[in-house]
Amino acid sequence: MKESIAALRALERQLFAYRYADALFTYDEAAVAPPAGEDGRAVAAETLSAARFALLVSPGTDALLTAAAAEAETERERAEVRELRREYDRICRIPADEYAAFTGLVQRATPAWARARSNNDFAAFAPFLEQIVTARRRQAQYIDPGRDPYDVLLDQYEPGLTSARCDTFFAAVRAAVVPLLAAIQQRGTPVRTDFLQADWPLDAQRALSRRVMALWGLEPEHCIIGESAHPFTDDLWRGDVRITTHYKPDDFTSSLFSVMHEGGHALYERHIDPELDFTALAGGASMGLHESQSRLFENYVGRSRAFIGYLWPTLCELFGQRLAGVTAEEFYRAVNRAVPGPIRTEADELTYPLHIMVRYELEKALIHGELAVNDLPAAWNAKYEEYLGITPKNDAEGVLQDIHWAGGDIGYFPSYALGSAYGAQALDDLRRTMDLDAQWARGDLGPVKNALCERLWRYGCLKTADWLAESLCGGPFDPAHYTRYLTQKYTALYEL
Amino acid sequence: MKESIAALRALERQLFAYRYADALFTYDEAAVAPPAGEDGRAVAAETLSAARFALLVSPGTDALLTAAAAEAETERERAEVRELRREYDRICRIPADEYAAFTGLVQRATPAWARARSNNDFAAFAPFLEQIVTARRRQAQYIDPGRDPYDVLLDQYEPGLTSARCDTFFAAVRAAVVPLLAAIQQRGTPVRTDFLQADWPLDAQRALSRRVMALWGLEPEHCIIGESAHPFTDDLWRGDVRITTHYKPDDFTSSLFSVMHEGGHALYERHIDPELDFTALAGGASMGLHESQSRLFENYVGRSRAFIGYLWPTLCELFGQRLAGVTAEEFYRAVNRAVPGPIRTEADELTYPLHIMVRYELEKALIHGELAVNDLPAAWNAKYEEYLGITPKNDAEGVLQDIHWAGGDIGYFPSYALGSAYGAQALDDLRRTMDLDAQWARGDLGPVKNALCERLWRYGCLKTADWLAESLCGGPFDPAHYTRYLTQKYTALYEL
Repeated sequence: MKESIAALRALERQLFAYRYADALFTYDEAAVAPPAGEDGRAVAAETLSAARFALLVSPGTDALLTAAAAEAETERERAEVRELRREYDRICRIPADEYAAFTGLVQRATPAWARARSNNDFAAFAPFLEQIVTARRRQAQYIDPGRDPYDVLLDQYEPGLTSARCDTFFAAVRAAVVPLLAAIQQRGTPVRTDFLQADWPLDAQRALSRRVMALWGLEPEHCIIGESAHPFTDDLWRGDVRITTHYKPDDFTSSLFSVMHEGGHALYERHIDPELDFTALAGGASMGLHESQSRLFENYVGRSRAFIGYLWPTLCELFGQRLAGVTAEEFYRAVNRAVPGPIRTEADELTYPLHIMVRYELEKALIHGELAVNDLPAAWNAKYEEYLGITPKNDAEGVLQDIHWAGGDIGYFPSYALGSAYGAQALDDLRRTMDLDAQWARGDLGPVKNALCERLWRYGCLKTADWLAESLCGGPFDPAHYTRYLTQKYTALYEL
Repeated sequence: MKESIAALRALERQLFAYRYADALFTYDEAAVAPPAGEDGRAVAAETLSAARFALLVSPGTDALLTAAAAEAETERERAEVRELRREYDRICRIPADEYAAFTGLVQRATPAWARARSNNDFAAFAPFLEQIVTARRRQAQYIDPGRDPYDVLLDQYEPGLTSARCDTFFAAVRAAVVPLLAAIQQRGTPVRTDFLQADWPLDAQRALSRRVMALWGLEPEHCIIGESAHPFTDDLWRGDVRITTHYKPDDFTSSLFSVMHEGGHALYERHIDPELDFTALAGGASMGLHESQSRLFENYVGRSRAFIGYLWPTLCELFGQRLAGVTAEEFYRAVNRAVPGPIRTEADELTYPLHIMVRYELEKALIHGELAVNDLPAAWNAKYEEYLGITPKNDAEGVLQDIHWAGGDIGYFPSYALGSAYGAQALDDLRRTMDLDAQWARGDLGPVKNALCERLWRYGCLKTADWLAESLCGGPFDPAHYTRYLTQKYTALYEL
């Protein structure tokens, strides 16, 4: 191995350590730590963030990347240079103190958000969000002063994504979803959901989570299920991928589909080539690709008629009398009912992208300075009225419902909708040669997992996000697969 | 503030961040993480340890400490210089790569120990312990090549402690304990313990832990109770102090007294002057002082007749019929019975120091190269036979029972016995002006906490460990208080 490549790999290993600590801080804060311990965590996170920044951003690293670019021979070596150079170019323009201060800020903002949400008190969170929006806007300007700042942020989560591409994509989705939803509301055959209202024991819900993890093939030796206000997946490294869920006593399907969703993220991380451990190529390649896997396992597998047929006896075993007199078909329809509601993570597949559009438009307006943080709750409620025909009953179930902005993630949301579209196209392509429904009906996820591993998972960041999206989809991206899927599913379900 | 002092404080804040991460890794590994995730943690810990080493050990830090020593004006500034200089002088002699490798080693050894203990397989742990002993011996030689290496290690946990002092102390303890135990076994009035054998519901045990935390005055906003194989306290910082316990279905007193013990550690950390947060003066001053507080709350409060009288209605409420027909007096006697057993953490106060002596003699022999790791299980069993008259039925309840050596802590154990003696002397001194039993009988721990805070807790490392030991004890250390306490308590209890 050339000297520059060896030095690069040593640097990657060091950077991994800081990423690991950061991921652990995140998991700990949300699922473990005492609620009032944030000051020390913020000080520690800020310091470690500054140390990581100093490690990456230095004339030495710049020179090393240049030398390694000249000496890289294998695809992997070139990819390592590409990924580190991309990160270097992005953060080297941000002043070191602002970079570290931002880390401390989100460490403080996240528990402040959790408290504000519990207390339904947007005003308590607003000063943090104000600072986060300002900081993100400044970061975008540092990174590329000539570009639209929101586009700069989008690119961090999904390389190459722009507002223009989002607008085109969402226009196509809207054109399919809005009339479909209207048709359902006007003339859809009603779906029975009364049996979902019951008292669902938490022990049985926890047992169900473990069953889903086992069906997904996620081993407890490497994956744990924590509990947090907002479900998420946290990959410390390939051998330690954690998911969280939130159990609701009155609705076991909330946690069920959360676990399926986060389990999809975990499968992706668990199947990256072990050769890439502790390097810049470990981890999923983009948030859109990541969400494609989570939403695939949540919706295309988990909410499919075939898989629900397979899962039904397990549900009846765990919940006993509460599901007596209900059929698998009725359950399938109930968990796929299209009903506008206030909460994104509990939305059905049809209304889901409308929740994303609300966030996309609002966060873009915040970054563009066209919307003030103090005006956000009213704007949120107005958008919900416009797109979904409902008004959240308070800010806790409105603008405060998601953790993303508190964590500094502005520009992330569009990747959820994009991911759904990637997944629909990938499955259309796979179905040309595989009878997925027959496999899922017998609980066999092996073939679909093998195919996804082959097309996407194993690569980590070895290939670019664009290349991987095309590999996953089996061709150039085309949102028509997604809109056709939604149209067919909901036309049949509501007998339109 | 002088420039050198400001620079020193910035360095302390950075060092805090690495200590915080290390403490979080420890808690996470023991109480949260999936069992097979250690490789990534070890890589991360090793890297962060190397970064911390580089931060502290540099010509720049050396010069800064010298400048700050000259410019320090306040007691606090002088103490900061003293503590950092002490750590600098200790680790600067250890080669950087060996220092980092040791961190990685204990990160791997700890889960290996946990598995070896579960599987009763000392051979699986032996190679790790072998490396740890070798590394610790080498470290001691680097730090002070002219001194007995075991004394060098003792000094890390209890500044100023030596084998000679340990020998004198343990001789005094042995002279009191051995005949007392013999008298109990020959002519003590039997103590009823049959009612402790029952099936104790875990929910009630968990509720009891929360009650104890509340009685100790440990707020859930800052202190959580986790579960781990081996109970411990982990102070991430003053505002986030975590304890763990281990619930046994067949013995609720195991967790009860563990929580009282760890709660004592937590009280100490929670009451250090907030002005010292994130500096080298945060945290308890020595392990002996720390154990003095944990063992004080576990034994001198928790196992006292007065406090058990107060706690009794709570126990009856939580465990209901299982305690019917038992009196508080019988419970007091049962949890104070002096019976040699294999497990240190479950030992009564009388046999406890014998467990410590076993470990003291064995770890000293390991460091001196007089005992090979492979011969350790047999030596362990022989010492248990010699001191306690019993032989552990296997290595899991023998040599594998404690986490300390796996975590690299060799030289720590004597501080437990020393702590017990500090605590006995401190309470003798306090009782001259306070009726502690009357306070504890009504559940009032306020006065004793205030006194301990005044004498010890608030200082952190502002004062030296020697100064604090004398402040705590109310005079020069004298183990006679401890041996007299044991003699009086057990003479009365067994009606000798």
